[in-house]
Amino acid sequence: MDKIFSTATYKERRAQLKKKMGSGVLLFLGNEESSSNFKDNWYPFRQDSTFLYFFGLDMPGLTAVIDVDQEVEMLFGDNLTTEETIWQGLHPPLSDLAIKVGVEKTKPKSEIAEFLASLSDRPIHFLPPYRPENSQKLASWFNKSLQEIPSMVSVEFIKAVVSLRSIKSDEEILEISKAVNISVSMHKKLMQQAKPGMKEYELLGLVTGEALSHGGNVSFPPIITIEGQILHNHNYSNTLLEGKMLLGDFGAESAMHYAGDITRTIPVGSSFSDSQKEIYQIVLNAYQTAVAALRPGIRFKEVHLLACKKLAEGLKDLGIMKGNLDEAVDQGVHALFFQCGLGHMMGLDVHDMEDLGEEYLGYTEDLKKSSQFGLKSLRLGKELEKGFVITIEPGIYFIPKLIDQWQAENLHSDYINYEKLAQYRNFGGIRVEDGYLITETGSRLLGEPLEIEIKDLEQLREKQSNL
Amino acid sequence: MDKIFSTATYKERRAQLKKKMGSGVLLFLGNEESSSNFKDNWYPFRQDSTFLYFFGLDMPGLTAVIDVDQEVEMLFGDNLTTEETIWQGLHPPLSDLAIKVGVEKTKPKSEIAEFLASLSDRPIHFLPPYRPENSQKLASWFNKSLQEIPSMVSVEFIKAVVSLRSIKSDEEILEISKAVNISVSMHKKLMQQAKPGMKEYELLGLVTGEALSHGGNVSFPPIITIEGQILHNHNYSNTLLEGKMLLGDFGAESAMHYAGDITRTIPVGSSFSDSQKEIYQIVLNAYQTAVAALRPGIRFKEVHLLACKKLAEGLKDLGIMKGNLDEAVDQGVHALFFQCGLGHMMGLDVHDMEDLGEEYLGYTEDLKKSSQFGLKSLRLGKELEKGFVITIEPGIYFIPKLIDQWQAENLHSDYINYEKLAQYRNFGGIRVEDGYLITETGSRLLGEPLEIEIKDLEQLREKQSNL
Repeated sequence: MDKIFSTATYKERRAQLKKKMGSGVLLFLGNEESSSNFKDNWYPFRQDSTFLYFFGLDMPGLTAVIDVDQEVEMLFGDNLTTEETIWQGLHPPLSDLAIKVGVEKTKPKSEIAEFLASLSDRPIHFLPPYRPENSQKLASWFNKSLQEIPSMVSVEFIKAVVSLRSIKSDEEILEISKAVNISVSMHKKLMQQAKPGMKEYELLGLVTGEALSHGGNVSFPPIITIEGQILHNHNYSNTLLEGKMLLGDFGAESAMHYAGDITRTIPVGSSFSDSQKEIYQIVLNAYQTAVAALRPGIRFKEVHLLACKKLAEGLKDLGIMKGNLDEAVDQGVHALFFQCGLGHMMGLDVHDMEDLGEEYLGYTEDLKKSSQFGLKSLRLGKELEKGFVITIEPGIYFIPKLIDQWQAENLHSDYINYEKLAQYRNFGGIRVEDGYLITETGSRLLGEPLEIEIKDLEQLREKQSNL
Repeated sequence: MDKIFSTATYKERRAQLKKKMGSGVLLFLGNEESSSNFKDNWYPFRQDSTFLYFFGLDMPGLTAVIDVDQEVEMLFGDNLTTEETIWQGLHPPLSDLAIKVGVEKTKPKSEIAEFLASLSDRPIHFLPPYRPENSQKLASWFNKSLQEIPSMVSVEFIKAVVSLRSIKSDEEILEISKAVNISVSMHKKLMQQAKPGMKEYELLGLVTGEALSHGGNVSFPPIITIEGQILHNHNYSNTLLEGKMLLGDFGAESAMHYAGDITRTIPVGSSFSDSQKEIYQIVLNAYQTAVAALRPGIRFKEVHLLACKKLAEGLKDLGIMKGNLDEAVDQGVHALFFQCGLGHMMGLDVHDMEDLGEEYLGYTEDLKKSSQFGLKSLRLGKELEKGFVITIEPGIYFIPKLIDQWQAENLHSDYINYEKLAQYRNFGGIRVEDGYLITETGSRLLGEPLEIEIKDLEQLREKQSNL
């Protein structure tokens, strides 16, 4: 099995977790197979990331327990029956697998409920379930209703896991870099093969195939669209039209389930129009400003606002924004064009630890999330630390519906030139994105660099159109 | 929207269903988004097939009701909020979509529970849920525990749906043929590109990419393995070795979610060994025997047994089986080599309607499923009818663990030459599979023919190895 780290890695991670928790019983729910259109037609199995982080075993039907006080670690799961081995082939028994991740005690699945009951009134910590079958397990084990489960989640456990998983080890950074490099190769394929007349879904096939060909998968449903202004777009039915831009936001998950996530916006034809170049350069300037600001100790919210200011400056140069830009950014005016956050953490999940809750992951007691339109979509606000892996993904999106809404209310008209803006109504959207590691003194791009400058992208596209 | 049939099609299907049911209220649960490693990281959405069949709408969050007595048809679902349209783009309102499938009444999701309660003691029919979130919905609407739901399922409703969905219309056959043709193209790519030294997952990427490139997806998790004797094999980590065979069992789902499902077994190198050829030809003979027997009125169980007999004859010629083959097949001796069923229905699901229960789908009051090893894995036993779409997939699998088990018990030693069999212990497995439509007088291969004869496969592989 080359898909797990060393035994020592998992033991060390659990030792740190136990130290942080101090006492109590920790319950880890692995994931189950997930049915698509009938019970046995499954989506590709995806293990829970926290389970992978502490126990490494990448298969359905497992539950783990750490009893911090008794120093006991246990895996609950079933071996294949004789009949099952006929259909599924021979697999090592759970006890052998457990040893590989440093766990000495295994028990059949059927004993979990009884085991948990035997703990009587000792505190049992678990994390927020995000799959219905895991909520059902918890409800059944604790003899509670499904509605009661969310309030039983352990904030202490969440915080301990977040503090460990947030700081990536060298071996994790290597895995993330692998995922990023596959993501780069997915983007290169798209840049080489996209051409006018194609359907977006043809490119979905191309990049998904590339991800799978490396033994992993995509890290999230790819966005591949000529309607880049639609931020949550999982429609792939458009035809690529000359003159339009193609926004590709996708990445690979490595065989060990670490994520990559890259966005590029390229011309469907061989070159950008002048106006596309202008907006692209504004986005790229914001990206570079943000990257230059990355270092331990700076709040990511501050980096976000630096990027927003840079976007606003560019838009002012074009006559779309106007007035005092510090005031404008303070009031969130830029969010008419950049409605979302500058980035997110990345690791075993593409939005790392999103299941554990943004308030613990991206914010702190001292820094709560803003409710301002734009800022409220910033997943990460808190101070960066050495070892964080984050994405930087500024963009400019002209969303006709949102423009109409603001204009109808004459919103922020001191800072927005609605007349000029009307020219951009059907412009679309541009985003660029890469993953960065926070280092001692600043940051480092993860993986191999992928073309991002206008001239480099056009050169690549030019080559393609000559084929 | 070219991804739905005509309004008349859906109205007619529902009219037939109402006629069959006679009275009562029919409840159809659409599927929801399915979370992978955190709530908003979704697997590709897959609508429930029965929902697609009667209501055609391919999006999450819908529930439909037919009140047979009151002649009312209703769709429950929510339109995007203004904020959602900013992120997701403009979508037609549910009422417009409903009209396209001939449904005039729509209501918000929040009104379902109240609506169902208002029916007081009228019978409400629903189908077996196979996703946990849909079980939870039912439990909540009917104020029952999750455990009570299975016993509340309507057998009458199941039977009515099975009787309609089993007979494929011309437009459905066209869609299945599209799916089969994409499946053929997936197989051709694999046959052209597989070569010694590759990893199985590279081919997984190749064929999945091809399926997605046609606007659909794979119809089930592909089996691509040099260990063809492992019947349920979703591991892709082996390296392709010269001398081995590669078994590929996969297919596409068309953009409208109809399935294709084809299996071929090819040499990893450019040609089969003599012994591989011998076993392959036996499997192919069984395939041809089965296909020749297909016609309305014949029980599929009989076709299965004809194929088993043919397999046994071939194995007897090789000296692996011996004795009276009618007796041997009657006692299920062939199941040491062919442990599973000859085929299954295919349509909107690759194992069509498997969620509705094999006892209603594949068997009847007069023909119950056998419990004999081998036959108990035959999903379809009943009489074929014109309009059925089925697969034919015989195979020979040498499973060391199973051979050891039988030999240890000296099982069926009148019919098995265990000494001769020992030579085949590490042979692997071979399967071939295509989809057939039952016609007035016999059957018709669905889609374009794909190479299946030894010489044709070798010719294709020869070409590849010369590249």
